[in-house]
Amino acid sequence: MNGAEAVLRTLADSGVSLCLANPGTSEMHMVAALDEVPRMRAVLCLFEGAATGAADGYGRMAGRPAAVLLHLGPGLANGLANLHNARRARTPLLVIVGDHATYHKRFDAPLESDIEALAGSVSGWVRRSARSADAAADVAEAAAAAMCPPGQVATVILPADVTWSADAEPVTALPVRPRSPVAGQVIDAVAAVLRGAEPSVILLGGAGMHRPALEAASRVSQATGARLLAETFPARHERGAGIPQVERLAYLAEMAEAQLDGARHLILAGARAPVSFFAYPGKLSSLVPDGCQVHTLAGPGDDIAGALAALADLAAPGVAPVPQQAERPGLPDGDLTGNSAAAVIGALLPEHAIVCDEANTSGLALPGATAGAPPHDWLTLTGGAIGQGLPLAAGAALACPERPVLALEADGSAMYTISALWTHAREQLDITTVIFSNRSYAILNMELSRTGAPAAGERARSLLDLSRPGLSFTALAEGMGVPASRAQTAPEFAAQLRRALAEPGPHLIEAVIPPFS
Amino acid sequence: MNGAEAVLRTLADSGVSLCLANPGTSEMHMVAALDEVPRMRAVLCLFEGAATGAADGYGRMAGRPAAVLLHLGPGLANGLANLHNARRARTPLLVIVGDHATYHKRFDAPLESDIEALAGSVSGWVRRSARSADAAADVAEAAAAAMCPPGQVATVILPADVTWSADAEPVTALPVRPRSPVAGQVIDAVAAVLRGAEPSVILLGGAGMHRPALEAASRVSQATGARLLAETFPARHERGAGIPQVERLAYLAEMAEAQLDGARHLILAGARAPVSFFAYPGKLSSLVPDGCQVHTLAGPGDDIAGALAALADLAAPGVAPVPQQAERPGLPDGDLTGNSAAAVIGALLPEHAIVCDEANTSGLALPGATAGAPPHDWLTLTGGAIGQGLPLAAGAALACPERPVLALEADGSAMYTISALWTHAREQLDITTVIFSNRSYAILNMELSRTGAPAAGERARSLLDLSRPGLSFTALAEGMGVPASRAQTAPEFAAQLRRALAEPGPHLIEAVIPPFS
Repeated sequence: MNGAEAVLRTLADSGVSLCLANPGTSEMHMVAALDEVPRMRAVLCLFEGAATGAADGYGRMAGRPAAVLLHLGPGLANGLANLHNARRARTPLLVIVGDHATYHKRFDAPLESDIEALAGSVSGWVRRSARSADAAADVAEAAAAAMCPPGQVATVILPADVTWSADAEPVTALPVRPRSPVAGQVIDAVAAVLRGAEPSVILLGGAGMHRPALEAASRVSQATGARLLAETFPARHERGAGIPQVERLAYLAEMAEAQLDGARHLILAGARAPVSFFAYPGKLSSLVPDGCQVHTLAGPGDDIAGALAALADLAAPGVAPVPQQAERPGLPDGDLTGNSAAAVIGALLPEHAIVCDEANTSGLALPGATAGAPPHDWLTLTGGAIGQGLPLAAGAALACPERPVLALEADGSAMYTISALWTHAREQLDITTVIFSNRSYAILNMELSRTGAPAAGERARSLLDLSRPGLSFTALAEGMGVPASRAQTAPEFAAQLRRALAEPGPHLIEAVIPPFS
Repeated sequence: MNGAEAVLRTLADSGVSLCLANPGTSEMHMVAALDEVPRMRAVLCLFEGAATGAADGYGRMAGRPAAVLLHLGPGLANGLANLHNARRARTPLLVIVGDHATYHKRFDAPLESDIEALAGSVSGWVRRSARSADAAADVAEAAAAAMCPPGQVATVILPADVTWSADAEPVTALPVRPRSPVAGQVIDAVAAVLRGAEPSVILLGGAGMHRPALEAASRVSQATGARLLAETFPARHERGAGIPQVERLAYLAEMAEAQLDGARHLILAGARAPVSFFAYPGKLSSLVPDGCQVHTLAGPGDDIAGALAALADLAAPGVAPVPQQAERPGLPDGDLTGNSAAAVIGALLPEHAIVCDEANTSGLALPGATAGAPPHDWLTLTGGAIGQGLPLAAGAALACPERPVLALEADGSAMYTISALWTHAREQLDITTVIFSNRSYAILNMELSRTGAPAAGERARSLLDLSRPGLSFTALAEGMGVPASRAQTAPEFAAQLRRALAEPGPHLIEAVIPPFS
């Protein structure tokens, strides 16, 4: 069989059963081979950033990689920003970049460029497949590499002749390395710190934000008085009624400093030592308080839940975790604002929902308003590269077709990868998209003053303004086959959200709100 | 003054007066400084690929660089595909990437990534500015580098603290190196080849496709019998009534081979030796015929027009160029197809129009139908990275506000950077966009068989299909503030195109056509 078919069969055997594709000529043999390997589902995206963001959402929810099929260097380039987010999320994700045939590269045809340079910027593992006979083994290694705890982007570059030459065979899937157990001495040492009763914070991240880890951490907190905090932008946070609650570190460094104030010990469980998202004149980059000692209980690729459970058994024997109580805000009346929209979402969030949160400044009230909603997953903008939410929602819905997905999107961010809505419609994904339409890059209006820039003049402010002309997200959604409505009061928003959540398939609600509301 | 202001003043002194921006927090001091330097016009784009594509269009038409202001690695990543096209077009273009403050980088904050790796893949010149005091000198060098013939992408990485530190001063603009003269011996040698009267082709490219070069080439062709051909995807082709006509090499290798068949000498004037756009099983990559000798009259950075003029003086003394006759097709009746749409465009194309051609398979009849239209410029997809046309049109309109711009777009390609329409509306650019809506990646349906892939099954064909759901480009345009209409017959298209061209400001026409029509 040809290399393309051997690659697809090997991927399917390796547990990769979804291919998000935006192919071109050099990938045509991969496309043709899809009909030979029905175990591989192919989903078309109209832009590579939609494909890579969807693969990120899929990997976060499925715990195994989707493949993305991209066209040479420029196709990979268009997918890089969401691969950057996936890298920060430590998502298992397999990138397949079709390239010119091996013998064609030296002719520097128009689409030729340095694919390896681009791939290296987001991938933990990169290989160029040199021969058709090796292609299956290469992708088997790539799939295993992508799954290597905690997960990473693995990229295979497949020259066109490697896919079309007919001397390939599938290979057996490779074993995936498990998470590393944490040594008993490390757990003992952390237990000793906690017994010292100095003010301590356990900072959770990665798999430390899934339910088993949160329950163990809650036990430790109850028994020792250590405070729990979580990384600012988790890949996947399991939360809601019945699950121990944990507050995330604030995006704003000054607020994060207040959260960490007084801590003498910072115990990392899947999280990194906290740093400011950006630098500001006269501010420190590290958010670790002066005199605070940092201890690593578990790194991102370690058995975080196991380490926390062992710690709980040592430090909190017989102590139970404290689950979040079920509670929802009432449905608000009156104006639609960020706050009232959050209350509506808290009131209506369905059980087992997957929330893809790229609401940015419009979402500040969301964590509080949804804390006691039925159990759900919360996926965030891990790498800060905006344009993630609509694709991420597509991938989450493809991974979990039985679960409702709620995409909470800032208007500015939505426009980067707006064509993801077409894939929502094409695959009839059960996604409700809420666009917080405040007609500005509100976060930049805030950052403009935080960076100490001179008082903004008219021309500076104009660069942060999205009101001229105003975007109609209902028109954009309908142009791509997604039914849409516009809400201008809290009750309108509640009625539209209730209806959208009740109906299967994609919907979009344009929530018109003032900035910073 | 701070680094940001010194940079903007130096750029303005260096002839860079337009900044296409999609900024973030690390660029806030650059944004604030815009109010101090009114000579720098700033135009907001909603996606970096729109900004870089616009800078490409501007540079091709203005002959000097626009600046693009991008946000760290992910912002640059989103702009790379159109920078790839600009690299292939050899457009003078200045990229400014804001980065974290110098002291913040080692903390590996969420948006940290390898900016140099990305920049290197598209830039002929890259520098990271290390100190505020050096920033102005760095951008002065960058502007000169961008202008270095034939033009290139030059990238400056500006850490946030380099822009905000207040120990900077503007510097004087640097001289720009002129195009290199071609040595007399080279011209003599080519003249000798032509005197040999063996079948010869002069292949024009780059500045060889501007009027003075075309006139000189036409004289040579008339006098010596050498055939004229042009590169497949020129950055800017001056053509139409009164300008010598030159046929471009076909995209399809088999057609290009036929065009070059029998040539014993291929004389390059600004073009590269022709290669197949893609590799195909069993086909050669080079399109130079067997036994054909390649001679370089002028490289892309040489004085191509001067070399052709000197050659004409040697080989064609007293011979006049043959201008294209004025002729237009009649307005067709009946169905709207790629062919009838081309006739309408040929019938109505205004004098001095700038055509941004990303029509792909729907545009095959365009060159013929417009050959005798009033003089105009034709800008093409130089690097093959689709998603260029709508941004390119924005940049062309910003460079030449007095000229009508016609963006001819394939539906699939349009979706990559569709948000460029918002910038068309915001700046009220005089752009008429025609979307050829055939609801398929038609070119890939063709390539699927050309690559020798097995007969396409249902799943393969589905990945090339854009009909489920159908995109409404009128809705998309109206969602971004661009008035739009849909044409389904040739007369409807003619009426709508006439109206759109007559009115100032942006318009969009969705031309519904069958694939390969």
